[in-house]
Amino acid sequence: MTKYKLVLLRHGEGAWNKENRFCSWVDQKLSSNGIKEARNCGKHLKALGFQFDQVFTSILSRSIQTAWLVLEEMGQEWVPTQSSWRLNERHYGALIGLNRAEMALNHGEEQVKIWRRSYDVTPPPITESHPYYKEIYDDRRYKCCDVSQDKLPMAESLKEVLERLLPYWNEKIAPELKSGKVILISAHGNSTRALLKHLEAPKFPKDVSLQCPVPLPGHSQKGISDEDIVNVTLPTGIPVLLELDENLRPLGRHQFLGDQEAIQAAIRKVEDQGKVQPVEKK
Amino acid sequence: MTKYKLVLLRHGEGAWNKENRFCSWVDQKLSSNGIKEARNCGKHLKALGFQFDQVFTSILSRSIQTAWLVLEEMGQEWVPTQSSWRLNERHYGALIGLNRAEMALNHGEEQVKIWRRSYDVTPPPITESHPYYKEIYDDRRYKCCDVSQDKLPMAESLKEVLERLLPYWNEKIAPELKSGKVILISAHGNSTRALLKHLEAPKFPKDVSLQCPVPLPGHSQKGISDEDIVNVTLPTGIPVLLELDENLRPLGRHQFLGDQEAIQAAIRKVEDQGKVQPVEKK
Repeated sequence: MTKYKLVLLRHGEGAWNKENRFCSWVDQKLSSNGIKEARNCGKHLKALGFQFDQVFTSILSRSIQTAWLVLEEMGQEWVPTQSSWRLNERHYGALIGLNRAEMALNHGEEQVKIWRRSYDVTPPPITESHPYYKEIYDDRRYKCCDVSQDKLPMAESLKEVLERLLPYWNEKIAPELKSGKVILISAHGNSTRALLKHLEAPKFPKDVSLQCPVPLPGHSQKGISDEDIVNVTLPTGIPVLLELDENLRPLGRHQFLGDQEAIQAAIRKVEDQGKVQPVEKK
Repeated sequence: MTKYKLVLLRHGEGAWNKENRFCSWVDQKLSSNGIKEARNCGKHLKALGFQFDQVFTSILSRSIQTAWLVLEEMGQEWVPTQSSWRLNERHYGALIGLNRAEMALNHGEEQVKIWRRSYDVTPPPITESHPYYKEIYDDRRYKCCDVSQDKLPMAESLKEVLERLLPYWNEKIAPELKSGKVILISAHGNSTRALLKHLEAPKFPKDVSLQCPVPLPGHSQKGISDEDIVNVTLPTGIPVLLELDENLRPLGRHQFLGDQEAIQAAIRKVEDQGKVQPVEKK
C-alpha cells in the first residue's frame, strides 16, 4: 500500500504565545524559547531520518522562521519552500491582541474555549478602528495574495479556515504528496487543526479502518468530528506525522513525534491558556 | 524608460572564506562574521527602502542562509524564494578544499590568479579519489537537479559557470524582472561575476551609452570584456545594484551599496587572498 508522509508543525512559541494574547495575523516573531523549540524539532526530525522534498508555510514570519530553523538543523536548507496566506493562523477578528486570561475573566472560560476551539463559531470581525487593522491590511504581503484584498477575511471560524485552506491543499500540496514527495507544513495551531480535521474527518466508508488501537482523547475511532475538534490541542514546535494512502486517507491516527510525556505536558499548558489565571500578589 | 531593479549579493563570509580555502561546492555554513555581514546587508537594504518581490539563491546553504538573514532583517521573510544549482559557486574541480595562499606558494600567485579570476581557464577536474567527491555527489540535493547527475560539472571556468547559469537566467529570472518584480539574487563570488559580465558585456550597439562618468578599475566604458573580468572582485555581503532597461540592458554601471571606503577595503582583502601570505612567527 502506498504510504505518503506528511509532517504538520505548529510554529515554535511566539512572543504573544508567551504573553497569552491572540496573535493571529499580527506578524510576531518567535520568542527565544520558540527558536529553541524549532531547533529541537529539526534535530529530532534529523535523528529520525526525515528527508523532506517540499516545505509549505504561511506568510507569517513565525511559521517561516520555524521552517528555516528546522531545515537548518537538518542540513536541508535547499529544500524548496512555498508560502501562502491560506496556511495563516485563524483570523481572530476583533479578538486580535487581547489576552486570553483577561478575556476568560470578562467573558467566562467557556466562551473563550468556544472562540478558541469550536468548529463553526466566528468571532466578531476586525474593524478599521482596531489597533492592528492597518498593520495587517496595509502590509505588502497581503497585496500579493491570490485573492484581492477585499476578499481577505475579517474574522474566521475554524470551518472558514478550512474553507480558505482547502484550495491550496487540493491544488498545491496534495499533488506534491501524490507524486511521492515527503512534505513538511510549518503553520499554526488552527490552520494545522483545520487540516487535521479534514484529513481525519469521519467521512470514510465503514471498510476503511483507521488503525488506532486506543482512541486518543478527543478522537472517535473514525476520525475527528465537528464536536470532537474542540478537544484537539497542538503544542508548539512538536511535529505531527500523518501517513496517508494513495487517496490521501490516513493509514492510522496522527502521531506526535518526540518524548510523549513532555508532549502531553505541553498540550496541558496550551489548554490552560484559556483559563482564568491566578492573580499574582503584588 | 522602464527601470528594472536587480540586486546581486555574494553571500556573507563562510568558514572556508576565513580559512582561505577553495570552498566551491562544499556546503560550508556562514562564519559568525558572515552572519553579521548578511544581517548588516539586510539592515542597509531596509534603510534604503528596498522591497523585494522574488529572491533567487543557489542550493548551497551559505547563499540560502544569507538570503534568510537579509529577509529577516528587512521583515520580508514571506517573499518567495527559489533555489537552483545553476546559481552555485564555480566548481573548482581538484582545487576544492585547498588553501589559496599555499597554492600561491606552490604554483605562483599568477597561476592562482588565473584559476580564480580568468574567464575561460578550467581548473583540473575533481576525481573520485578527491576527499570531497562523495560528500558533493552523494548529496541528495544534486539528485533533485534539472539535469541528471552525470551532466553535473566536475570543474568549471567562469565561462562554463555562465553557460550553466544562463538557461536559469533566461527562463526563470529574466521573466520575473520583466514583469516588474524587484529581484534579489543571493549567490556566490563567481556566479555573481559571471552574471555581471553577461549583463555588462560590451555587446551593445554603440548608441547604448552606459552612463558611467568614471570607469571603475577593471571596467571599460562599454562593459566587462573577457580580459577585464579578471580584475572584477566582489566582497562578501555587499549588495550590488543593477538597473536595467526593458531589454535588460544596464542603464548604468553596477553600484556597490554601502560605505564606499569600507567596500574598497573589503575588495582589497579578497584580492589579497590569492597572494603568498607572510609566514607568522611561532
